[in-house]
Amino acid sequence: MSPQASPPEETGPTPPGRTRPGGRTARTRALVLDAVRAELGEHGYDGLTLEAVAARAGVHRTTVHRRWGDVGGLLADVLDAASDDDWEPPNTGTLQGDLAALNHEIQTALTATPPIVTALIAASFRSEQANRAQQRLWEDRYARCEVVVGRAVRRGELPPGTDARRLLIAATAPVYHHLVLLRAPLDPGLPDHAARAAVLAASAGAFAGPPPAGRA
Amino acid sequence: MSPQASPPEETGPTPPGRTRPGGRTARTRALVLDAVRAELGEHGYDGLTLEAVAARAGVHRTTVHRRWGDVGGLLADVLDAASDDDWEPPNTGTLQGDLAALNHEIQTALTATPPIVTALIAASFRSEQANRAQQRLWEDRYARCEVVVGRAVRRGELPPGTDARRLLIAATAPVYHHLVLLRAPLDPGLPDHAARAAVLAASAGAFAGPPPAGRA
Repeated sequence: MSPQASPPEETGPTPPGRTRPGGRTARTRALVLDAVRAELGEHGYDGLTLEAVAARAGVHRTTVHRRWGDVGGLLADVLDAASDDDWEPPNTGTLQGDLAALNHEIQTALTATPPIVTALIAASFRSEQANRAQQRLWEDRYARCEVVVGRAVRRGELPPGTDARRLLIAATAPVYHHLVLLRAPLDPGLPDHAARAAVLAASAGAFAGPPPAGRA
Repeated sequence: MSPQASPPEETGPTPPGRTRPGGRTARTRALVLDAVRAELGEHGYDGLTLEAVAARAGVHRTTVHRRWGDVGGLLADVLDAASDDDWEPPNTGTLQGDLAALNHEIQTALTATPPIVTALIAASFRSEQANRAQQRLWEDRYARCEVVVGRAVRRGELPPGTDARRLLIAATAPVYHHLVLLRAPLDPGLPDHAARAAVLAASAGAFAGPPPAGRA
């Protein structure tokens, strides 16, 4: 499962979410959000229209317009729906294993075909509504990942008081940077490498409060 | 100076660049690219038009159209022009000092008003021509920064054979991730913190070939 957003084929019945929809409403939402993901994957933001989404979902355009407003509203709901899952970060038994597995999930999501996750990130630069929803999703995912750091502290791999968020960002940012911003060719070794670098930094005290005397 | 793109007020006479323009052509280019930066900073990609750029620059729209084609061509030339400078990475005497100063430059550029650098990055998701130019600029900047790692190796701070690019990306990616992707509130301590984490990882051998036995 992607740490970013579920691909269309994984969307079954909509789980309880922000809107707490009932049966038919939930089915309509699932159909429409599937159609948004499919249209976005095929045509990108510029090809995404309420008409195409409605046609693909088999619902009336006015239904889509009334419930989601515009393309920004559709994208925001796709992003919000991605949080309505039971995704958990990997649990491999070691900090480095967990972070490497997480980075592999991220790399897989960012290089998937169709490129739904990257299209959603790109769309977040276009629509303020999608931007806010993308920020909520990042926050949800990083918050869920903090358990990885908590487990490492309990195993004695990291000191108590380790700054989980900064460690998680140090571990994962290079993968996003490489693929989303630099748009460089796939570097198969990067997920493991970035995880290992973050663990070495953490072991040296990089995420555990002020610099120890003599280190910085 | 920004590691990403010169703000408009810094653009004097166009230095020798890809197009090797002569006097009047160079002046026109400087006026037009200044106008692109100003329009982009004020209105973003969606407000950027050939008409507004031409009017602001005081040149004919047909001149702009003939030379740059469209908005994507204008943005690509702004990005290419950013490489036509003598920017060098900071030289503070220590690896951590250099990386921290670099991260402060990046943070300053990414939080500047008007937000030209972030607008250019956002535009690179819209225009394939701007995308390729943004990739060239990233490559130019990271290549110039490799001297920071070379100096650290010569000072004995890092082992020979250190992977300069991976170290630079580990040091800088968290700042970009925080501000460009997560769009989180400014974290004034992040530039120093990310630099220090990268240096600690590098000191532990994270960027010097295969993992030492027993570490990973």
